[in-house]
Parts: sequence; structure tokens; C-alpha cells
Amino acid sequence: MHREILSLGTPGRGTTELTGRLQSLVAATGVEVGLCHLFLHHTSASLILCENADPTVRRDLEVFFARLAPDGDPLFHHTAEGPDDMPAHVRTVLTQNALTLPVSGGRLDLGTWQGVYLWEHRTGPHRRRLTVTVSG
Amino acid sequence: MHREILSLGTPGRGTTELTGRLQSLVAATGVEVGLCHLFLHHTSASLILCENADPTVRRDLEVFFARLAPDGDPLFHHTAEGPDDMPAHVRTVLTQNALTLPVSGGRLDLGTWQGVYLWEHRTGPHRRRLTVTVSG
Amino acid sequence: MHREILSLGTPGRGTTELTGRLQSLVAATGVEVGLCHLFLHHTSASLILCENADPTVRRDLEVFFARLAPDGDPLFHHTAEGPDDMPAHVRTVLTQNALTLPVSGGRLDLGTWQGVYLWEHRTGPHRRRLTVTVSG
Repeated sequence: MHREILSLGTPGRGTTELTGRLQSLVAATGVEVGLCHLFLHHTSASLILCENADPTVRRDLEVFFARLAPDGDPLFHHTAEGPDDMPAHVRTVLTQNALTLPVSGGRLDLGTWQGVYLWEHRTGPHRRRLTVTVSG
Repeated sequence: MHREILSLGTPGRGTTELTGRLQSLVAATGVEVGLCHLFLHHTSASLILCENADPTVRRDLEVFFARLAPDGDPLFHHTAEGPDDMPAHVRTVLTQNALTLPVSGGRLDLGTWQGVYLWEHRTGPHRRRLTVTVSG
Repeated sequence: MHREILSLGTPGRGTTELTGRLQSLVAATGVEVGLCHLFLHHTSASLILCENADPTVRRDLEVFFARLAPDGDPLFHHTAEGPDDMPAHVRTVLTQNALTLPVSGGRLDLGTWQGVYLWEHRTGPHRRRLTVTVSG
């Protein structure tokens, strides 16, 4: 079981692709066939598998979630850190913080159009901790 | 660690139950106590655990998601493959592509009312790749 | 691979924190570095990682999901067990029944603000089965 902890800076709300960095990390473990578990230690950012060819997909996801859980929605009472505080928690609960991916041939075995993204839900920049565990 | 790759045809939008096929596959590995990891290599179809007794539950899920992310919603710019293209990505992000299930007594240890379903979100038929990993 | 099955009573709709109980269970296994898999054997209750400091976050999640999938919504045909029946299935599909968490230093390695919660979606009290698998 190989474990690595990454510290990732985000520029504020939006997606950052992690696929290349994770592929290098998996390759370095020497595991040929196994599983790679990702865990994000936060409640206002998440991990998604998303179409990796057309950036418009991620733009559309962003506007969809903004319509679903708008910043400043009067429904929310938890506004301690601003109008994007509670929407960030809602978006996180609707997506995922933990993701397990297959490793095959020494690589993450993703579909042709699948990329792994860190999705920052807060509007300001943050530092995010990701634990990667590769077993095989 | 036992691995199998399934190629599954879907008739278009809707759910296909995989529970029976997965139970046979788990039984064939001889693993008595362990975990079964499922991974769908796509961004417009997903895996869900759903009530398996009344098909109306899956009909209701379908209409709920159709209301939440309607085909042809003018909010979406990514329409390259038609009006169901972006709604399929949204539905996938709101559900799951990876699922880990317990194996006990040589079987998937699901609840009485839990079935594993492949949920096709595109309106047309597709072929979908599923990687199954059983460890114990 | 260590396995334990918990039987958890819920007082009806709302969240019950499991973090402390799971920490004790992980500590008792003696696993120092590994993974902890949680599986809830139901289709009308789910597991979430949620902000654990301000209970208002969980109040806001509750009202958000009540607006998204209201009890008694005429959209739903599956009403066999009452107006909260189908909304409970929808909430479960939108969240998770299976969760894998990292174990480090003999403990669940959660973020500072992350707690593990059982989220009951039915309005009445229920007994829920949770399978915990710790490997390392």
C-alpha cells in the first residue's frame, strides 16, 4: 500500500485537472494492477470525474450548480464565511470527496473522455489536502 | 485481486439491473469476505444503488432528474451531441461512476431492497465498459 | 481485513454523527495505515461527510434537499410508504451509501472540519445496518 499526500492550491471556484499528476504518482509506485483511492480532506471542495475534451462541459456544470444552490440564497442560515459558504457545502455533498479508480498496466485506467478534477467551490483561493493511496 | 471487464449494451436512457450478473461474477472468484469495486469508464452514464422491488422508483428518479436538468435547457452551451449531451454529464456528476460494495459469504452483501443499476443518461443506445475488481 | 456490522437506530429524518464510534472501531483493529470502507444497506438513508462545527450546516442541507425533492411532490408516483418515500430514495441517490476513508496513525484521517454522518431521509424512526471494513 503506497500513500502520498498532496497539497494543492486553487485559484478560487472552478476545476483543476489532476489526471496527469496522478498518472505520474501511480507510475512511480510500480503497481501494475490495483486500485487508487483519492480522498479530499475538506467539506467545501470535491473530486469529480468529468469529460476532459471540451472545457464548456465544466463551464456548464458551474452554471448548473450556481442555479441549483445560488450564492446568497436566503434559504441558508450558515453564512459565517460569506454567501458562497453554504453553497460550497451543498455542492460537496452532491458530488464526492472520495473516489476509487482502477489501476491497470501501471496506469489509472480511465475512460477516453474521463479526467479527474479537483472542484473548488469557494470563490476565494484555498489550499487543499488530497491523500492518494495505491494498492495492488 | 480478481479483475473482470464487462461490456454492456444499453437501449438508451434508463436503468439496467446488474445485480445478478455481479453476484455470479463474485461467486466465481471464490472470495468469501472482501470488497467488490465497480468502475464505469464513462461521463454520461452512472452506477446507482436503487430500490429493486417497485419499478416506479426508477421511473420517478428518471422524471426527477429530467426536471432537474432538462434536455435542451438553454443554460447549457455544450450541445455538440444533442440536447441530452450536457444533461447526461450533469446526471453523472450528481450520481457515481465508482462504487465499492462489501462481499460476505461469497456474495455481494446488499440490503434487502438494494439493487445495482447501470443508468444510461443518453437517449440513444450505447456500449458501456465496466471494470469489476474483487479483493479479499 | 477487519469487518464489523453496526445496527444504528435513527429518530427519523436528520443526521447522526458516527465519527467517534468509527474512530474507536478503527483503533480496536490495530490497523495503522490503510482504508476504512463504510456501507449502508439501505435505499432511503445515506452517508455523508459534512462540516462538523456548526449544526446550522446540517439544518441548511436539510432545507435544501426538502426544496429540491419535497415530500408529497406530485411528480412522484411511488408513494406506497407515504409522502417521504420517494424523496428519501432521491436524496439517497444524490448522496452516497458507500464511503472509503483513509486510515493513518491508527485513526480515520479526516479533515479538521469533516465528520461522518448517517443521514436518515425517512420521517419516522428506523434501524439501519452499516458494514465497516478496515484493511491495511
